[in-house]
Amino acid sequence: MSSLPTCIFCKIIKGEIPCFKLFETDTVLAYLDIQPLSKGHALIIPKYHGARLHNIPDEYLSDVLPITKKIAKAVGVDNDDPEGKGIGYNFLQNNGRIAHQEVDHVHFHVIPKRVQTEGLGVGWPAETTDFDKLKKLHEELLKAIGN
Amino acid sequence: MSSLPTCIFCKIIKGEIPCFKLFETDTVLAYLDIQPLSKGHALIIPKYHGARLHNIPDEYLSDVLPITKKIAKAVGVDNDDPEGKGIGYNFLQNNGRIAHQEVDHVHFHVIPKRVQTEGLGVGWPAETTDFDKLKKLHEELLKAIGN
Repeated sequence: MSSLPTCIFCKIIKGEIPCFKLFETDTVLAYLDIQPLSKGHALIIPKYHGARLHNIPDEYLSDVLPITKKIAKAVGVDNDDPEGKGIGYNFLQNNGRIAHQEVDHVHFHVIPKRVQTEGLGVGWPAETTDFDKLKKLHEELLKAIGN
Repeated sequence: MSSLPTCIFCKIIKGEIPCFKLFETDTVLAYLDIQPLSKGHALIIPKYHGARLHNIPDEYLSDVLPITKKIAKAVGVDNDDPEGKGIGYNFLQNNGRIAHQEVDHVHFHVIPKRVQTEGLGVGWPAETTDFDKLKKLHEELLKAIGN
């Protein structure tokens, strides 16, 4: 793994700081957030020090989503919930100060939501659909991607 | 793939509804959200119809994070941004009505954020740390996990 001695999450990975561990694999560690937004709020961190998601090699990310599913099931989500009325949860990863990232080691939040007053607050300032603008942006992005 | 004829995202996967496609692999499709929260807001959907993340088989999730990194780079995030002051982005997936999910086919949002007035609004009603409560919850979850 790549590690930074001063990083609090690297210290947790190395066992220098304790945590309420839920899962550990060769590439990720999952544990309870100690300042939770709701009961069961957990963090999953890659065992590779990188500040933003695009800095993490793919091989350190492959266990993240399978572990997220396991955490969701452990906190009691319903496997068969066609109406989406049971325990909800948000899966979130923030990059950069402006996007609410505070610790510069990539971390994925699994945040249960049982009532509106707990969990992640979601603000959704959606733009109205502008197909001309989208078409231009699409062309720009395809160029950037190299398609 | 598992598909639901009435699902709008399944129709996009099958090409019955057009989209501004960015990436496609055997297991996922990525395209621009047409009601974006910011310029470059993209969706990544598994080619498997399932309402919540825990309903999707792991093999349909393995391309999600690698594609997220590619989208972030295409929208112009800086590879070397130690202070986190460049273009930020939030990676988000919502499960259940209470957690702001509207379409019942799992979708991951990649939402750039350049200024506070655009992108995802993040509310963070953190609880103060209560180690006794966390210890009890940890024991409960480990039982649920089967450790």
